[in-house]
Amino acid sequence: MLVNTGDDFEHLGLHISPDLDTVMYTLAGIANPATGWGVVGETWNFMDQIDRLGGPTWFRLGDRDLATHAVRTERLKRGETLSAVTADLCRALGIRATVLPMTDDRLRTIVHSEEKRLAFQDYFVRMKCAVPVTKLSFDGEASARYNPALDQLNVKEPLAIIICPSNPYLSIDPILALPGLRDWIARSGAVVIAVSPIIGGAAVRGPAAKIMRELGLEPSAAAVGLHYGSLIDGFVVDDIDAAGTTEIAASGRPVLSTQTLMRDASDRIKLASDCLAFVQDLLRQRS
Amino acid sequence: MLVNTGDDFEHLGLHISPDLDTVMYTLAGIANPATGWGVVGETWNFMDQIDRLGGPTWFRLGDRDLATHAVRTERLKRGETLSAVTADLCRALGIRATVLPMTDDRLRTIVHSEEKRLAFQDYFVRMKCAVPVTKLSFDGEASARYNPALDQLNVKEPLAIIICPSNPYLSIDPILALPGLRDWIARSGAVVIAVSPIIGGAAVRGPAAKIMRELGLEPSAAAVGLHYGSLIDGFVVDDIDAAGTTEIAASGRPVLSTQTLMRDASDRIKLASDCLAFVQDLLRQRS
Repeated sequence: MLVNTGDDFEHLGLHISPDLDTVMYTLAGIANPATGWGVVGETWNFMDQIDRLGGPTWFRLGDRDLATHAVRTERLKRGETLSAVTADLCRALGIRATVLPMTDDRLRTIVHSEEKRLAFQDYFVRMKCAVPVTKLSFDGEASARYNPALDQLNVKEPLAIIICPSNPYLSIDPILALPGLRDWIARSGAVVIAVSPIIGGAAVRGPAAKIMRELGLEPSAAAVGLHYGSLIDGFVVDDIDAAGTTEIAASGRPVLSTQTLMRDASDRIKLASDCLAFVQDLLRQRS
Repeated sequence: MLVNTGDDFEHLGLHISPDLDTVMYTLAGIANPATGWGVVGETWNFMDQIDRLGGPTWFRLGDRDLATHAVRTERLKRGETLSAVTADLCRALGIRATVLPMTDDRLRTIVHSEEKRLAFQDYFVRMKCAVPVTKLSFDGEASARYNPALDQLNVKEPLAIIICPSNPYLSIDPILALPGLRDWIARSGAVVIAVSPIIGGAAVRGPAAKIMRELGLEPSAAAVGLHYGSLIDGFVVDDIDAAGTTEIAASGRPVLSTQTLMRDASDRIKLASDCLAFVQDLLRQRS
């Protein structure tokens, strides 16, 4: 699993990797389902004391969650890679999937709002996405290398790449911005599919639809499919968007419509199975 | 109040200043009386999670206590001085006394045990002082500058310096090791007194007596007085040590014997009053 680190940042002396954390906590079964971030059953005594000391409280750090940041920060300071730290955190949390930061280098998503350049967390958390996005860019994109583990994958079966229904602009594009990453995908010969995060014109969670409107795009599954363009071999949309994506299917990229809204574990398993079956279909069509 | 920072260290990515913290928490009325360190009513969810992640647990960091370290670490990283950060933390905690780190530079106490060089917290917390001390040294002592605020004191009355009953070797000597600090004391014309941490041959808390034995000294109030030597103008010992310190008094350094064991606030106020009265006596004897 290749995870965006474009929204990593330093805060209160800690290196925080919000997307890696959410993926790890989710896979470990300790994610907080109410918030979509952080650890379930969290306590907030650190934050209360930060408030008392006059420190910044706009980014909420729970007492348990802090342990992840502290371990990561210390080990990065010692010169270890984010990949190595992540692998050990996953092991400690009993996660069997391979979680790879997209890069061990620094690539930071910058949100442009008219003339303002905002660090990602300033936009996303501090300002609660309340300013219009006019452009996105990625600091460090010229020099960041994609995770070298990608070149060491020892895959015997044809590779399938599933672009999850994350925010295409904030969470997927930083990964695709890494030099050579698109070439790696092409070289890999993988079947690439994407799942639309837009269902019936709205994002299930987060500002994807708002950002699309601000960028002059209609917030629709079809627009997401067009955004990924020739990168993908197939596209997965919700049943209610099937009619709106005939154009994509007509352009030679098959569209699977199914239930993409995941409310519980069984929905998640069902969608994953549908995606894998879709990949098998696409592979059969290739040969 | 000039506080030792020789036992500062970096741990889990955080800059920790144990002596400054204990002084601040005590003056703020939030110190944990049971442990002698940390915050009262502390919670330990961070530490539990560090344990789960396989991180180091030998140095216990409470959830509230962590806020101090995080604020300090971030601001030091930004290039602020330890003095500036400490002043703001004190203000936030409602502390009226001036708490000064002995230096804004790096001076680290090193505990030598035979051939081994141990970082202070390794010796003190991780090894629980279980190895014999053969020598103490101070890394950075050549280049560290004493806190520049000392040269900006605007004192109208004669200055009194009271060396508190801390461990002379671990907590006071690092301060005295700062280049120019002893000269500054001499130049200041201050009346200098010290309160013995050894009462009846034992330390009230901590390894002072043990270290004295290991260094070949008899653990006694008199030995502490001789250790400070000509630095002090007077010496404060417990009543039970009065008989043992006649030699110091005979050498021209008056000895005040009183109750030095502080079990509660009224004991502390009484000892402070005794010390101030003693300073007044010494000043009268000067003129």
